[in-house]
Amino acid sequence: VPEFRRDALSGHTVIIAANRAARPNEFSQANSGARRSPCPFCAGQLRTPPAVARYCLPGAEGWQVRVVPNLYPALRRKDPFAWRGEGSMSSSPAHGVHEVVIESPRHLRSLAELTGEQAAIVFRAYRDRVRYFRDLEQIVFAMPFKNSGPAAGASLEHLHSQLVALPLVPRPVLDELQTFQSCSARHRPCPCCRMIEQELQGGERIVRVTDSFAVWCPYASRFPFETWIAPRDHAPAFEEIGDRGLSELGELMRDTVARLEGRGSVPAYNYLVRSAPFDISSQDHYHWHIEIIPRIAHAAGFEWGTTIHMNPTTPEHAAATLRGNV
Amino acid sequence: VPEFRRDALSGHTVIIAANRAARPNEFSQANSGARRSPCPFCAGQLRTPPAVARYCLPGAEGWQVRVVPNLYPALRRKDPFAWRGEGSMSSSPAHGVHEVVIESPRHLRSLAELTGEQAAIVFRAYRDRVRYFRDLEQIVFAMPFKNSGPAAGASLEHLHSQLVALPLVPRPVLDELQTFQSCSARHRPCPCCRMIEQELQGGERIVRVTDSFAVWCPYASRFPFETWIAPRDHAPAFEEIGDRGLSELGELMRDTVARLEGRGSVPAYNYLVRSAPFDISSQDHYHWHIEIIPRIAHAAGFEWGTTIHMNPTTPEHAAATLRGNV
Repeated sequence: VPEFRRDALSGHTVIIAANRAARPNEFSQANSGARRSPCPFCAGQLRTPPAVARYCLPGAEGWQVRVVPNLYPALRRKDPFAWRGEGSMSSSPAHGVHEVVIESPRHLRSLAELTGEQAAIVFRAYRDRVRYFRDLEQIVFAMPFKNSGPAAGASLEHLHSQLVALPLVPRPVLDELQTFQSCSARHRPCPCCRMIEQELQGGERIVRVTDSFAVWCPYASRFPFETWIAPRDHAPAFEEIGDRGLSELGELMRDTVARLEGRGSVPAYNYLVRSAPFDISSQDHYHWHIEIIPRIAHAAGFEWGTTIHMNPTTPEHAAATLRGNV
Repeated sequence: VPEFRRDALSGHTVIIAANRAARPNEFSQANSGARRSPCPFCAGQLRTPPAVARYCLPGAEGWQVRVVPNLYPALRRKDPFAWRGEGSMSSSPAHGVHEVVIESPRHLRSLAELTGEQAAIVFRAYRDRVRYFRDLEQIVFAMPFKNSGPAAGASLEHLHSQLVALPLVPRPVLDELQTFQSCSARHRPCPCCRMIEQELQGGERIVRVTDSFAVWCPYASRFPFETWIAPRDHAPAFEEIGDRGLSELGELMRDTVARLEGRGSVPAYNYLVRSAPFDISSQDHYHWHIEIIPRIAHAAGFEWGTTIHMNPTTPEHAAATLRGNV
C-alpha cells in the first residue's frame, strides 16, 4: 500500500510505493534487446483498465484520447488521508488519484506528431478530469504532467501523460502562492502578469506570442531550454479554460514541443501544469502556467543539496534558438 | 560571468553560468569512442591550477589529496554579492568559491578503492577548507559534495569531489534550520538526535553503527537506497570534527560506498555534507549529517512539480540489502 511519509528534519513529504517497482519498463527492455509485449496503450490492445474518460474527433471512428487509472498507482482513493505516527516517523495512506492520459490511438512518440486539434483534446481531457477531482472529498490540488523519454522518467514510449490529485498542496505551489498573496496584500499587480508584460517589452526571452498566450524562457531558468507558457490575461485556475483557449493551447503546445525537439535540441523533457489549489480562499491571486523542463543536463549534488540550479545555457540564447527552430 | 538570478514567482535562486558549457566531458567523449586527452587530475599532469591545499600520507612521497580551484567555476570571489534589478528580474554576481578536491593521485573511480586512512584525508581537506571559507567576508554557508558517475552529473571519472562556499543559505537548509530552532524554542530535544535514537531502537533501517556515527536509510527516503550518516552525539558544524572523528568517518564512508556499490546496487550517486550556516546565531541547534543520494531512478515530472518523491524501494528493504552487502 503506497504511503506518504514526512521527514522530521526538512518536513518534506515522500510517497513510498513499493507496488510501483513492478511496473513494466519498455526502455530497459529495449536496452536488453527484446521488446517482450505489445504496447498496452495502442488502440485495440485493451491491456489497460476501462477508461474513466474517452474523447473522439468529430466525424472520426474510435477514440482519440483515453484516460485510464494508473495500473501502478502512487496514490489511491481507498484509504482516507490522515497523518499518524510517533516521534520522527509520520505517515499516512497515500490518498489521491493517479491516472494516465493516452494521447493517441496510434503508437506516436511525440506531441509534435499530433495536429493542433488532436493536442487540444489532450488538454481538454486534463481540464475535465481536474474539474472532476476538484469536487472530491479530501482532494485539494491536482497536476497534469508529462514524462517524455526515458531520461525524463518515462517507462513507456507511446505518447501519454499523467494526472495526480492530492490531499495536500506541494511545497513549490505554497511558495508561489505566498508570493502571489503577498503582492496582492500590498496592492501590487499579479507577479506573473507583470513578468509576462516585462518579457513582452524586452522580447529577448520570448519564443512565441499568440492572442491569449505567451511562450518564453524564464529569466531564472533552472534548466537549459526551460520554457514556460501562460495565459497573457490573469487566470488563476487552468480548469477554467474555455474551448477557444483549449484550441489555441493545443496548437501552441504542439508547436513549442516541435521547436524544443527540433534539431535534436531536447531529447527528453517533462512538462507540468501549475494551477491554483482548490481549497485556498485566496486562490484568485494565482496565475496558472505550464513549465516545460528539458532533460539535457543531469541535476547533480549541488542542485540536490541546495535546490540552486547551475544552468550553463542562458535563457536568452535558448529563446533565440527556439525562435529559429521552426 | 556567472550570475545569480532570482525567480519572481517561486523565489528560487539559480546560477546562470555560460562559462561552464565549455567544460570537458570525458563521458560524452567515451560515448563517441575516443578519449582525447590524458586525465587532468592524475599525478604529474599539472593540467589543473596550482593547489590551494595539499595533503600527504605520513611517510609517502608526493600528494595524496589536492584541492584546486574549479577551472569552470559557477561561483567567483571577484565581484561582491549584491542583488540588483527591476521588476521581475533580480540578479547578482555569483559571488562565492568553487573548488575541486582530487581524492587520489591514481586514476581511481570509487571511494571504496581508498583505504580508510586515505578516505579520512578527503574529509580532513573538507574540514580545513570549510574552516577557511568560514572566515571569508560575505560567505555564510559551505557544502562539500560529490558527483560519482555520469548519471550523477560527473563529467570526469577520476575520483574527486567539490566544495562550494555561498553568500546565501540554500532553502533546504533554511527549512531544516526552522525545524531545529522550533524544537529548541519548545524545549524539545534536537530532532536529529531524536531520529537517530529512534532508528537505533527500531534497527530495521540501520546499516551500521560505530562509536561516534550512525548510518541508516531514512524513514522518508526520497530515493531508492538513500543513506544518511550522522554523528550520534549532537554536533552542529561538520568543520568542528576532531582527528579521531575524521578517522572513524573516513573508514565509515569507504565502507558505506562499498556497500552501496556492492553487487551493482548503485551505479552512480551524489553525497553532500549538510552543516550549519556560519552566520546564524542559533546554529547550535543544527545537527550536521551526510546525505548519500543514489541515482537509480530518474526524478520525473511529478517530482519536479511537487518536490514529493515517489520511491518504489522501501528504506527497510534498502537497509537490509546494505547490511548484507559486506
